[in-house]
Amino acid sequence: MLQGHQSWVFEHRPVILASAAVGGPFEAEGALAADFDILHDDLWLGQESFEKAEKKLLEQACEKAIAKAGLNKEDVQFYLSGDLLNQIITSSFTARTLGIPYLGLFGACSSSMEGLALAAQLVASGAARYVLAATSSHNGSVEKQFRYPTEYGGQKPPTAQWTVTGAGAALLGREGEGPRITAATIGRVVDMGLSDPFNMGAAMAPAAVDTIQAHFRDLRTDASSYDLIATGDLGRIGLVIASDLLKKHGINIPEQKFTDCGVLIYKDDQPVMAGGSGCGCSAVVTYGYFLNRMKKGELKKILVVATGALLSPLSYQQKESIPCIAHAVAIEA
Amino acid sequence: MLQGHQSWVFEHRPVILASAAVGGPFEAEGALAADFDILHDDLWLGQESFEKAEKKLLEQACEKAIAKAGLNKEDVQFYLSGDLLNQIITSSFTARTLGIPYLGLFGACSSSMEGLALAAQLVASGAARYVLAATSSHNGSVEKQFRYPTEYGGQKPPTAQWTVTGAGAALLGREGEGPRITAATIGRVVDMGLSDPFNMGAAMAPAAVDTIQAHFRDLRTDASSYDLIATGDLGRIGLVIASDLLKKHGINIPEQKFTDCGVLIYKDDQPVMAGGSGCGCSAVVTYGYFLNRMKKGELKKILVVATGALLSPLSYQQKESIPCIAHAVAIEA
Repeated sequence: MLQGHQSWVFEHRPVILASAAVGGPFEAEGALAADFDILHDDLWLGQESFEKAEKKLLEQACEKAIAKAGLNKEDVQFYLSGDLLNQIITSSFTARTLGIPYLGLFGACSSSMEGLALAAQLVASGAARYVLAATSSHNGSVEKQFRYPTEYGGQKPPTAQWTVTGAGAALLGREGEGPRITAATIGRVVDMGLSDPFNMGAAMAPAAVDTIQAHFRDLRTDASSYDLIATGDLGRIGLVIASDLLKKHGINIPEQKFTDCGVLIYKDDQPVMAGGSGCGCSAVVTYGYFLNRMKKGELKKILVVATGALLSPLSYQQKESIPCIAHAVAIEA
Repeated sequence: MLQGHQSWVFEHRPVILASAAVGGPFEAEGALAADFDILHDDLWLGQESFEKAEKKLLEQACEKAIAKAGLNKEDVQFYLSGDLLNQIITSSFTARTLGIPYLGLFGACSSSMEGLALAAQLVASGAARYVLAATSSHNGSVEKQFRYPTEYGGQKPPTAQWTVTGAGAALLGREGEGPRITAATIGRVVDMGLSDPFNMGAAMAPAAVDTIQAHFRDLRTDASSYDLIATGDLGRIGLVIASDLLKKHGINIPEQKFTDCGVLIYKDDQPVMAGGSGCGCSAVVTYGYFLNRMKKGELKKILVVATGALLSPLSYQQKESIPCIAHAVAIEA
């Protein structure tokens, strides 16, 4: 199972039996609208708070994934989930709704692949028959917590990113039809000294590069093994920085093979500054768009490298730079 | 590996090669002072903030555990950690210091056993040779975040608990000398509708009972398999409620076998209301006191059931009750 220092290669490859992506009104106008299972035209989802709206997004993604797999909640051994809100309340309240034994995770925006990697490991090792991995973010709940109160309408620099309102879930099993998870690489914290919360892409890019490097080293492979390598979610600026850093490290990924979930999700004319971000970004793009392309036969093997900025009050006070991390999961059609 | 619905029984039992417990000045005056590796007489640990003081506690616990095992950071594949601060900043900044591939967890005060259970699973399944599981809490950083600004000096009811200033770490390996982890049970969220953040013990007790019940059911066993069953951290009030609930469910645990980390850690004359709490509580009591008693031969087999109140801003607004969870890990000398 363990290969190299920080990677898992799965002899018995876990199957993604079903996945689901749920989005908000802004995502419904985005570039990948067709790849969502459920789209909401109300940012509040009829709830009394954005936090409760985010909970509804995640509950819907989880219940949809379980239903699409033709299973019941009782069939699923473990629910692995994380999100951006303090005490990951969206994940915990959803765990209460589901009633499935729950492992709470926090990797900021890397939580999507942290959960998928661990879920695959649990299934591959026989620690579970079925595992549900999910994550979410909501523009209203997250931006009011991490940026400024949204009511301020404060201006943001072009390096900032737009938090995706969305939730994604994947149901993994040992046997069955569907894409298979072949490997995963767990990242380490990389901190290049950046402390600008409005330029996360630049802060997270080195972490993405470090994990891609570790993945290639541990698996003794290179970009030729993949049809697509997607970071999530560096945005336009972070993606360029990551490309440059990879070249500097002598790692060649052809431009047409290298992309970012935060760049893909919205249309160019949507006012998202450098692109999308948030736990839900890499989750909905992977569990919706990428898996759909794999089903259509457009992609055979992909590597999703979810990046997270492990923000803190300290970093806001500019007393500390922002520790970042990235986890990578390899999926084969 | 999977046994029953939510438990793991390890055929190849992971070894706790070393563990470390670090505490603050109030813990140095406590009942278990002799079981700490490092005790600080300065609540600030010479740092400029309580958050940075907590980081130092966790760094010391991790580095001590690695050193006691005679290993280097580079030998350890994964670092599993969670804490109570927003975005688990203590764990993430410590991961930056250690440079070990990192899986961030959040289970509130159940994080100690969530991390130990997952660490054991990774080692037992061959996903890692060595894994470090750790967690921490600091009275100053946690109480100012979750209760009121400590400077207010607000009065607390006798049902409230005192957040432990401490960090605990355990280094697990496949082979070697030390206590072995035989099984683990992952809890589900239990919410009995309580919403008083000053009576966590009562809110968490049903979760502890649910997990103990699941553990006995999955392993087809009962209290006779253990010399000690310790919840962490229900405090005095929660422990009594848990005992009553167990009896109601027809589960008999002899009184002298059933205790709680939050009850054990302080002396009766210390002003801790209902007892200790915080991620660091069950961590230091388990990795210090319990493991020391096992080494002395006083305990052969124990079950540690760490409980967590998955608090949220919503619950503070009393719009939501508090979802709680408990994870159990069985350790054999």
